[in-house]
Amino acid sequence: MKKNDTEQIRIANRKLIINYVRINGPVARVDIGRALNLSPATITQITAELQKDGRILEISSEQESGAARGRPRILIDLAPDASSVLVVKLAINELRILLGDHKGNVVTEAVYPLQTRELNAEQLTGTLLTAITGFIKKLARRRRPKAVCVVVQGAVNGVTGEILWSPVLKERNIPLRQVIEEQIKLPTTVINDANCLAIGIRQLPAYQDLNDLVVVMLGHGLGMGCFINGVLYQGPSGGAGELGHLNYMPNGAQCLCGKRGCVEAYLGDYALFRDARMLLPFAAEDELHPTEQSMQALVDLAEAGNGELVDMFHRAGVALGYALAGVIGILRPAKIIISGPGVRSYKYLEPGVDAGLTSALVPVLSAGTEIESVALGGDQLIFGAISLALQALD
Amino acid sequence: MKKNDTEQIRIANRKLIINYVRINGPVARVDIGRALNLSPATITQITAELQKDGRILEISSEQESGAARGRPRILIDLAPDASSVLVVKLAINELRILLGDHKGNVVTEAVYPLQTRELNAEQLTGTLLTAITGFIKKLARRRRPKAVCVVVQGAVNGVTGEILWSPVLKERNIPLRQVIEEQIKLPTTVINDANCLAIGIRQLPAYQDLNDLVVVMLGHGLGMGCFINGVLYQGPSGGAGELGHLNYMPNGAQCLCGKRGCVEAYLGDYALFRDARMLLPFAAEDELHPTEQSMQALVDLAEAGNGELVDMFHRAGVALGYALAGVIGILRPAKIIISGPGVRSYKYLEPGVDAGLTSALVPVLSAGTEIESVALGGDQLIFGAISLALQALD
Repeated sequence: MKKNDTEQIRIANRKLIINYVRINGPVARVDIGRALNLSPATITQITAELQKDGRILEISSEQESGAARGRPRILIDLAPDASSVLVVKLAINELRILLGDHKGNVVTEAVYPLQTRELNAEQLTGTLLTAITGFIKKLARRRRPKAVCVVVQGAVNGVTGEILWSPVLKERNIPLRQVIEEQIKLPTTVINDANCLAIGIRQLPAYQDLNDLVVVMLGHGLGMGCFINGVLYQGPSGGAGELGHLNYMPNGAQCLCGKRGCVEAYLGDYALFRDARMLLPFAAEDELHPTEQSMQALVDLAEAGNGELVDMFHRAGVALGYALAGVIGILRPAKIIISGPGVRSYKYLEPGVDAGLTSALVPVLSAGTEIESVALGGDQLIFGAISLALQALD
Repeated sequence: MKKNDTEQIRIANRKLIINYVRINGPVARVDIGRALNLSPATITQITAELQKDGRILEISSEQESGAARGRPRILIDLAPDASSVLVVKLAINELRILLGDHKGNVVTEAVYPLQTRELNAEQLTGTLLTAITGFIKKLARRRRPKAVCVVVQGAVNGVTGEILWSPVLKERNIPLRQVIEEQIKLPTTVINDANCLAIGIRQLPAYQDLNDLVVVMLGHGLGMGCFINGVLYQGPSGGAGELGHLNYMPNGAQCLCGKRGCVEAYLGDYALFRDARMLLPFAAEDELHPTEQSMQALVDLAEAGNGELVDMFHRAGVALGYALAGVIGILRPAKIIISGPGVRSYKYLEPGVDAGLTSALVPVLSAGTEIESVALGGDQLIFGAISLALQALD
């Protein structure tokens, strides 16, 4: 055993405790120990340090019913103001910047419209830096952020912090982390949006014990975040989890990536909207970037009994069923959670999903994986991003 | 930190050292420490214990050229006779039992023909137990095995040791580990053949530093073994890595599993032989279980210029290319190694593999994963099985 193994374990336990309290606080010390399988001595020592640093607060809880009278229970929670971090979310034609506190809550935010697909790499990073600098300047001194998390739709190298490729940008291989760290002087993480949503969802009490969990994000495209043995898996060079480009049908529908037959070419918002326009007389709009209103209109039409749209959603569901079968065959996770804005149409996708799964995989090979759809979108994604930025400081 | 954390680290380090010496021995103590990032004190303490237990031997090496004259270098290696384990390999119509020594070598083996697909679960386990008991009885007392590793083609629950489904058997859900442990009274591991090959291949010096490695096994079907963050990943309920049943073409070719369009229905030996018989006048044989000779004959015909077979292999290669694209999209491993008996035709598959990959995935999403085909079959699989059984004893 190396001399510093004990110290490394202490640091790891400290991170575990902070993260547990962030998600579950206010909590009693004894419950933290039980949940994390740590001894009372370890909990007492580490929480005392954190209290001394002002990172946690003691709270006297209401007296519990049934507990000994007159003796309030002491709970601890993270001190919200002990730290602040910045989340920068880059989506199609929209940049969103927000400040998160130590507890994971959003303190303030701003939205900047910009034509993401018109900008070259230099214009993009320039615009981002200007917006971030301006946002920080308006904050009270005690609120100045200590770390940044950038959330991007598209393939990201989690190791180098490069955006490899994104449907919202026209350029590839943008070294975003390097640029931000050099100019803003804050430790920066760059992460794919579906990975970030997976981090946020796994912090919900219902899912935090699942070590092998896949989160599928339906939206403009189709993303995936994957926990393996309790750790978010991004692959040795980042970019794992590109479920949207799993091939569903060789030489099939045209995908935005340039290839044909990717599952997202049947299922992404842009694909559904493009196909719906072949069937119905919609007003012209940017068909590759339909608005939430337009996408909801498709669901409403299905709801009103439009058979062509019901069929279209069914076929899209079949494509998703095949993609889930691929994930199950390769990874066999305990659970797959389907989330993101695209779950708005899940009622109409679901029969197709079941049919696709049944066509693609015999039951003995899909047993052991539960599939669940939940309408958890932006909030969990943002909580995931704030906690990821905070973890860089723990 | 729990009281027994230190002890757990010591046990983990002991396992690491034994495994490292098994693969790399004979080696100098200093090289073990360097490779495993362990302190000289730890190495000295643990190797002294292992030497006292008779598990390792000291060997005086030849004097190294350039080293100080007259002072032989002390190397250590595992004592081959310190332990023995049994490997039981169940394939179509063949049961193979062999004894492995502490160093990972095969000491003796026997092959038993049996009609695997004719037997019900009780007959199968009965035959297995009789063969194992008979095999053990013939061994010298000091050679009696201390653990068993059963290698099976098909889906296995690595946690419970059940065979979930295998193309070589007619029954499903056979609790093989339980039966063997009850009757033979030895700790037993049940593992899928492709996972076992992956373990064996990762122990080769060229691959042991790759933490994110996928091994694809071409043979009767198509199997996969997957290392993630340095650990073989089988999924929480076992059975991950069913690459053969990744769907390549919805409603495509009939697969042995019952579904249509699985990649192995284009690429497994049974599929290639079935398709070749549509093209060429072959003598009748059990077309679902072609012999190695028959499969080699197809390659020889392609080699002799038969255009129909060259095309058939090309199309099979395209299917494999799509499957590899699926693995890369989801896992983005550092390397994919293609091995197993089916690499006999890789020369004719390869142009198709390249074409399939190119059709399925844009380069920015496949960058970072190397693909390599190597003709490493049975030996690495058996070494993997022996070392897995031995690890249960470390």
